[in-house]
Amino acid sequence: MSRRMPISNLTVLGVDPGIGRVGYGVVRSHGSTLTLVACGVIETSKRLPVGQRLASIRNELTTLMSTHHPHRIALEKLYFSKNVTTAMTVGEARGAIQLVAADARVPVMEYAPSHVKQAVTGYGNADKRQVQRMVQVLFKLKAAPRSDDAADAVAIAVCGSHRLPL
Amino acid sequence: MSRRMPISNLTVLGVDPGIGRVGYGVVRSHGSTLTLVACGVIETSKRLPVGQRLASIRNELTTLMSTHHPHRIALEKLYFSKNVTTAMTVGEARGAIQLVAADARVPVMEYAPSHVKQAVTGYGNADKRQVQRMVQVLFKLKAAPRSDDAADAVAIAVCGSHRLPL
Repeated sequence: MSRRMPISNLTVLGVDPGIGRVGYGVVRSHGSTLTLVACGVIETSKRLPVGQRLASIRNELTTLMSTHHPHRIALEKLYFSKNVTTAMTVGEARGAIQLVAADARVPVMEYAPSHVKQAVTGYGNADKRQVQRMVQVLFKLKAAPRSDDAADAVAIAVCGSHRLPL
Repeated sequence: MSRRMPISNLTVLGVDPGIGRVGYGVVRSHGSTLTLVACGVIETSKRLPVGQRLASIRNELTTLMSTHHPHRIALEKLYFSKNVTTAMTVGEARGAIQLVAADARVPVMEYAPSHVKQAVTGYGNADKRQVQRMVQVLFKLKAAPRSDDAADAVAIAVCGSHRLPL
């Protein structure tokens, strides 16, 4: 398992977008040390109109940005999806994230899912459980992040903290 | 060809979203009279990052909103797409539009493509040329809107001006 050296003093906000649940993870690298600063899930209510759900995602992400001042936002590239409606809905959430990034002049980096898995587990086809477990090991957490979405977002942030080839 | 009565004194902004080209049409109804107030296309440069393109779409739509004060925004429901990447990209543009609407507290109505075509041509399977032609006839324009995207957006706004069943 080869791991690239992290870039020094870099804060990355990894985001795993969705309209109902947005996973996020803030990872800071200092020399070769990675620190998990924050992770969690932004949830929106199904009972609200889409626009209000997106506004809520935007507002919570904006708060995260002003709290943690990330140097970049990391997203996963989506190559396939179960269906077009899912892709469009994820796209709407991605649009809100892209706008937050553009307004804050923070660049958005996109990584293939296999690169994200490679970055945390050393294995491009790792499953969600393995990603959760490796996030726990990597950051010496007492337990793995409870949410898949949060663990995925942390993995995306870890990937964004490394000089991985795109 | 049956056409429902328009709602009185209603301004509708119809939008046909995309990351590179966003068609828009503003239609005002007064009694049974429909007026085309404005239509056109917002274009964004391929050379800009996605976030900046979305910010440009958001800013131009915000200007349209403050110029024309629409009571509602009308969008087409997308049921299928050539591929998932297209659906996601359209989704990103839709996210920006939904945010503009939510911030302005203007409701977004969605219509099936067949309803949109039915509303302007009386025929749910009309092609793009027929939609352009009927937009010209309906508003007694000297020529059809040059852009497909603008004509589609006008058709969506016309659909949103009628009490059509969703």
